[in-house]
Amino acid sequence: MASHRVLVVGGGFGGLQAALHLRSAPVELTLVDRRNFTLFQPLTYQVATGALSPGEVCYPLRALFKGDRNVEVELAEVVAFDLDGRQVKVAPAVGDDRPARDIAYDTLIVAGGSHYSYFGHDDWAAHAPEVKSLESALHVRSRLLSAFEAAECEDDDERRRAWLTFVVVGGGPTGVEMAGQIGELARDTLRHDYRRIDPTQARVLLVETADRVLTSFPPSLSRSAARALEHLGVTPMTGHTVVDLDAHGVEIAADGAPPQRVPARTVIWAAGVTASSLAGRLAEATGAEVDRNGRVTVEPDLTLPGHPEVIALGDMVRVRDADIAVLGVAPVAMQQGRYAARLVRDRLNGETTRPFHYRDKGNLATIGRARAVADLHVLRLSGFPAWVTWLVVHLFYLLGGQNRLLVLIRWMFSFVNRGRGSRLISPPES
Amino acid sequence: MASHRVLVVGGGFGGLQAALHLRSAPVELTLVDRRNFTLFQPLTYQVATGALSPGEVCYPLRALFKGDRNVEVELAEVVAFDLDGRQVKVAPAVGDDRPARDIAYDTLIVAGGSHYSYFGHDDWAAHAPEVKSLESALHVRSRLLSAFEAAECEDDDERRRAWLTFVVVGGGPTGVEMAGQIGELARDTLRHDYRRIDPTQARVLLVETADRVLTSFPPSLSRSAARALEHLGVTPMTGHTVVDLDAHGVEIAADGAPPQRVPARTVIWAAGVTASSLAGRLAEATGAEVDRNGRVTVEPDLTLPGHPEVIALGDMVRVRDADIAVLGVAPVAMQQGRYAARLVRDRLNGETTRPFHYRDKGNLATIGRARAVADLHVLRLSGFPAWVTWLVVHLFYLLGGQNRLLVLIRWMFSFVNRGRGSRLISPPES
Repeated sequence: MASHRVLVVGGGFGGLQAALHLRSAPVELTLVDRRNFTLFQPLTYQVATGALSPGEVCYPLRALFKGDRNVEVELAEVVAFDLDGRQVKVAPAVGDDRPARDIAYDTLIVAGGSHYSYFGHDDWAAHAPEVKSLESALHVRSRLLSAFEAAECEDDDERRRAWLTFVVVGGGPTGVEMAGQIGELARDTLRHDYRRIDPTQARVLLVETADRVLTSFPPSLSRSAARALEHLGVTPMTGHTVVDLDAHGVEIAADGAPPQRVPARTVIWAAGVTASSLAGRLAEATGAEVDRNGRVTVEPDLTLPGHPEVIALGDMVRVRDADIAVLGVAPVAMQQGRYAARLVRDRLNGETTRPFHYRDKGNLATIGRARAVADLHVLRLSGFPAWVTWLVVHLFYLLGGQNRLLVLIRWMFSFVNRGRGSRLISPPES
Repeated sequence: MASHRVLVVGGGFGGLQAALHLRSAPVELTLVDRRNFTLFQPLTYQVATGALSPGEVCYPLRALFKGDRNVEVELAEVVAFDLDGRQVKVAPAVGDDRPARDIAYDTLIVAGGSHYSYFGHDDWAAHAPEVKSLESALHVRSRLLSAFEAAECEDDDERRRAWLTFVVVGGGPTGVEMAGQIGELARDTLRHDYRRIDPTQARVLLVETADRVLTSFPPSLSRSAARALEHLGVTPMTGHTVVDLDAHGVEIAADGAPPQRVPARTVIWAAGVTASSLAGRLAEATGAEVDRNGRVTVEPDLTLPGHPEVIALGDMVRVRDADIAVLGVAPVAMQQGRYAARLVRDRLNGETTRPFHYRDKGNLATIGRARAVADLHVLRLSGFPAWVTWLVVHLFYLLGGQNRLLVLIRWMFSFVNRGRGSRLISPPES
């Protein structure tokens, strides 16, 4: 009998956990991703300020499965789902232009993740890069560092001020962490680097529509986070919304007040998450619901309605009847990935599986050196204890002993000398 | 009295040593470079195979001089030299388009370095990237890794073979090191990563016009290096020259024989070094000679003829009457940079300085794991002892304690598990 063919689309947190927990099962597994590495997204923002180097937050997918002869990794992009024919059309992501090919499956697991939506203004993306993808984080690194350089050789006061104004849009964990990093970069790392400008005079604005930052945390921790941000020179502008932006600044509106224009040459986007377009395509093929964030609704066992052989998970799905308070975070995707693997194994063994249940272990966000907030439900931490918790948890989940050691060393150096080891303005590729 | 103004152009090995050895002198120093970091070029090729991460071979220029209030760093490009007016016109390298500005100097030190010349075929550069600059090394990394990926999903035997053929042009230290790295990547690192191709079947050709590799070393060490290369699966093609190349292969000619076409999708260039164009411009301004590699001839004290206040050094110069056997290597540039600093200091003290004399401490090249050659004049080493020498010397000269520690850890991991920690195919910047 031919063994059960499992196709996993997406090598992020969810897809990877599914693949890792299926590799020892009696299956032929194919993992498809556009990239040759899995990215540890919770630390990608640290690449954007040079605190970490790209290689340290990535792990080659093939290296993870080199010992598993039943696992194939394929660098490709999904072109179309054919759920009735039980095959997925994929186009190669590298090499010559070759025709797309079909991969047949017995079980399909789709974990396409999410990206930022720019509130429907796609043209804003060019002026306000995000820090969720590695390429964009590297672009932000060049933009941030170049802004200080440009300010240093700018004679005009107003233009210099625009170079030294940094706007972060979105007060969730990524926005808070990014704003804190810019604050530290300006006040600590670059403090003595310039001769004409004073980097500590940089303005960092964190714009959040809600009335507090970190809305997924208890209000008391939001207050701690806001205080920590202010300590780093960040101005949290809660109750404010960015209504327009271009290469030279943003327009920010507060309830009932006319919008105010803030000249700023560096804007970083961390708001408005939208599911991968794969979610919409799966919904179309199955008649499943799509919510306003583009997420497809899956059954309590993460399968698509009418297609028990198709599982979708992670940032791109909403689980019917489930009570998952926090969305778009790695722990949910990882637990769902492991659940998907268990579901496939149980079926192969003829066993039934209970619906997916999220075990919420808590919520963490760091603001800067020795500052963080941790909501562990039984315990709420802020400051140094929260920061140590954050550090240990992130090192633990980072893939690869080498990466863990390298990141730990970089953090230790940064803690002591307030430096950032990888502060390169990327030259354009030749 | 206003203090003596020194302008240093170029933050590579030579310019940086000049600046570092002048910062405690009673001078106002300006260091101009197009990049915000100095690159440790002898290890850049290791970035090209993912053995090291970009940040580990770079150091931010500003961080080096943050404590020296008399030193300014400027990210700019030289537009024109005005030697009679004692000023240099520079254009900002980042930020808005702003007019170029003049920097006045009392002493000018120019260290523009060198780049590859492609034997006059500039169009070859697109198909055969080099590994001397960081951006190109990252490009090579993506090309190398993508070649294996493309081979994995290629059904046609001939086309797959072209994807698995790697040609390195130039048998100097960089070419030898690069070819060895590709050999190791294919035979060790990627050995078990693929399911359809066998990476150990990859062909690596090292094409060198001379009759041996590493012509700057004694013939016995060239033979050791060739043997070590063959052990890694590299075919040294000495006495051969690349006469044409395009995206699909190279044409290689041996003396008297008709050229032979080798289908190859990855070609890496490491031949034909040419001086920075700044050399030609200084020659034009002073009437100094230019040799066939574009290098300007300087006086025995590294000054330009008729312009004792203008010093040029490093890869872009030839020193009149000097007997420097090895050219284009870091030690020459570094010693010249330190000499330039001494010359300026001596002049300020009213002392005379003896002509520049190169202290040749030897020559090192590594071929792969535990394999290298070292010509220390009193001692010739190959194999493991040469490799340890190479390792210690490179770690010693690398800038920054953090970088040293990180590189050492990466090398230790690679030595043990034959892995390469930073194997990312760079996605295009968004």
